[in-house]
Amino acid sequence: MESTTIKQVTVVGTGVIGNGWISRFLSQGYDVIATDPAENAEKRMRASIDQAWPALEKQGLAKGASKDKLKFEPNLEKAVADADLIQENVPEREELKRKVLAEIDRFAKPDAIIASSTSGLKPSTLQADCSKPGRVIVAHPFNPVYLIPLVELVGGKDTASETIKKAEEFYQSLNMKPLVISTEIEGHVADRLMEAIWREALHLVNDGVATTEEVDAAIIYGPGLRWALMGPFLTLHLAGGEQGMKHMLEQFGPALKLPWTKLVAPELTEELTDRVVEGCEAQTTGHTIAQLEERRDEFLIELMQLLEKYWPGANLNGKI
Amino acid sequence: MESTTIKQVTVVGTGVIGNGWISRFLSQGYDVIATDPAENAEKRMRASIDQAWPALEKQGLAKGASKDKLKFEPNLEKAVADADLIQENVPEREELKRKVLAEIDRFAKPDAIIASSTSGLKPSTLQADCSKPGRVIVAHPFNPVYLIPLVELVGGKDTASETIKKAEEFYQSLNMKPLVISTEIEGHVADRLMEAIWREALHLVNDGVATTEEVDAAIIYGPGLRWALMGPFLTLHLAGGEQGMKHMLEQFGPALKLPWTKLVAPELTEELTDRVVEGCEAQTTGHTIAQLEERRDEFLIELMQLLEKYWPGANLNGKI
Repeated sequence: MESTTIKQVTVVGTGVIGNGWISRFLSQGYDVIATDPAENAEKRMRASIDQAWPALEKQGLAKGASKDKLKFEPNLEKAVADADLIQENVPEREELKRKVLAEIDRFAKPDAIIASSTSGLKPSTLQADCSKPGRVIVAHPFNPVYLIPLVELVGGKDTASETIKKAEEFYQSLNMKPLVISTEIEGHVADRLMEAIWREALHLVNDGVATTEEVDAAIIYGPGLRWALMGPFLTLHLAGGEQGMKHMLEQFGPALKLPWTKLVAPELTEELTDRVVEGCEAQTTGHTIAQLEERRDEFLIELMQLLEKYWPGANLNGKI
Repeated sequence: MESTTIKQVTVVGTGVIGNGWISRFLSQGYDVIATDPAENAEKRMRASIDQAWPALEKQGLAKGASKDKLKFEPNLEKAVADADLIQENVPEREELKRKVLAEIDRFAKPDAIIASSTSGLKPSTLQADCSKPGRVIVAHPFNPVYLIPLVELVGGKDTASETIKKAEEFYQSLNMKPLVISTEIEGHVADRLMEAIWREALHLVNDGVATTEEVDAAIIYGPGLRWALMGPFLTLHLAGGEQGMKHMLEQFGPALKLPWTKLVAPELTEELTDRVVEGCEAQTTGHTIAQLEERRDEFLIELMQLLEKYWPGANLNGKI
């Protein structure tokens, strides 16, 4: 279902993320203009979209979707002039992003939404040099952008609530799952979690405990199987037996003091304990732990059947 | 395929993990004796196995597999006397584990393997009070133990290499993916990664940035989808375009200094950079990034079709 207010989209910056956005926008039937000052950017962009397209065809294109609805326009001013939404994807450097967003702000239509794909910077920082900061928002996607549904939406202190609402509707129209985050912090939410696991993984490799391949194996054959369905909280809620998270915090709370990672944990106060337990119970209202376990098991069986075709051991068609 | 050397298995401690092991052993056709000093332990154990059994039937039982091959024996000495392998799953307290393992060591056959399911303790610590420490090993599984294939095998300083070899063969006979870890640290490998994400998640909830449900959503619709296939290193290797991990470390290396998590990262030295890049290249030998991307995309499409049935929005058959 296309957005009612957004028809024309412009993508600024055509690296891996920008090109991923273009593929997703096109696959959902939108008209897209792309701009990038780099030499050969158009050629690389078209090759990247050709690479993504078979997957999108397999998944099913929206009515009217076509690679022909993409136009490359090297001039930024011309590229953004008629856009209803501009998705910015220049390299992750604060000064550069602020400069480019201020330019977009100058050339865009007054009611256009300006969305930054930044993985780490706060929207309040990014909108600081814009004359109309109310329309600036963070819309942070995940690679491959044309397939992964999550997009984190974060407003800065000057972002209008109407902007967040319109953006949420727009990204839903792309078959995405927008997660609106009300408190802005560096790295938003998902990247903080990924960065924690990434830093710990680097420590393990740095300390000679495991190779990159062993770290990956420790995830893909174990916890990775559960995270696609449940995330870290629900996973533990279901590891605690009938008492769920309450039991887990009692049993493994003390482990937070142990040197099981290089990350220092917060104090497990009564308030935090309540917040975590009540959160897990709210997520699963109306369902017993036994029902949740049954659902998890059915999923895991189907997932593992699927993965037999793809895990490293399968070595499918000469692909790893 | 049953192990050639291990026929009779004893499970000590019948909580969530112990019962998960029993279900897996039974489903693969093994004879199992279980022991636990708690009141009503046998009743709870049998209920837990009944809960797991339909999933195991769905997955396919081994020839001769039967719930009737399980015997409960409250006396520890009798329970372990004839076992070829004893799987210990008492609560995660060092003193208690050491005491129980020393008892098992006293009563077990000389050539029996003694495996601890500890998630955090080092095998050198656990084997310290045993008269035959050469046969003591850590075999750390993941919940639900009857379905998740990963088992981390870690030997202590006195563990015989023959023990590790026999254990590896045995856990493979259970359709598991043993990961032999040569350097013992608290939390082994997978739990360090999980503990890092868990501690960061607790910080986010504690700081009021996100609810438990939002943290879970930030994983299940995003990075969780990739981890079941690739783990953290290969995921980033494929996010770096044609240059892979090399490009990612150049572009996002500086972010390791930023406060994107509360975990302090290691210095990204030339040596660590080389180790990470060479590791990723070794994992993917003979395959281009384009081939790897194609494989990833095909997997993601199938996974998301599967998850449509299970994600919270689906609310399948009254299950969440």
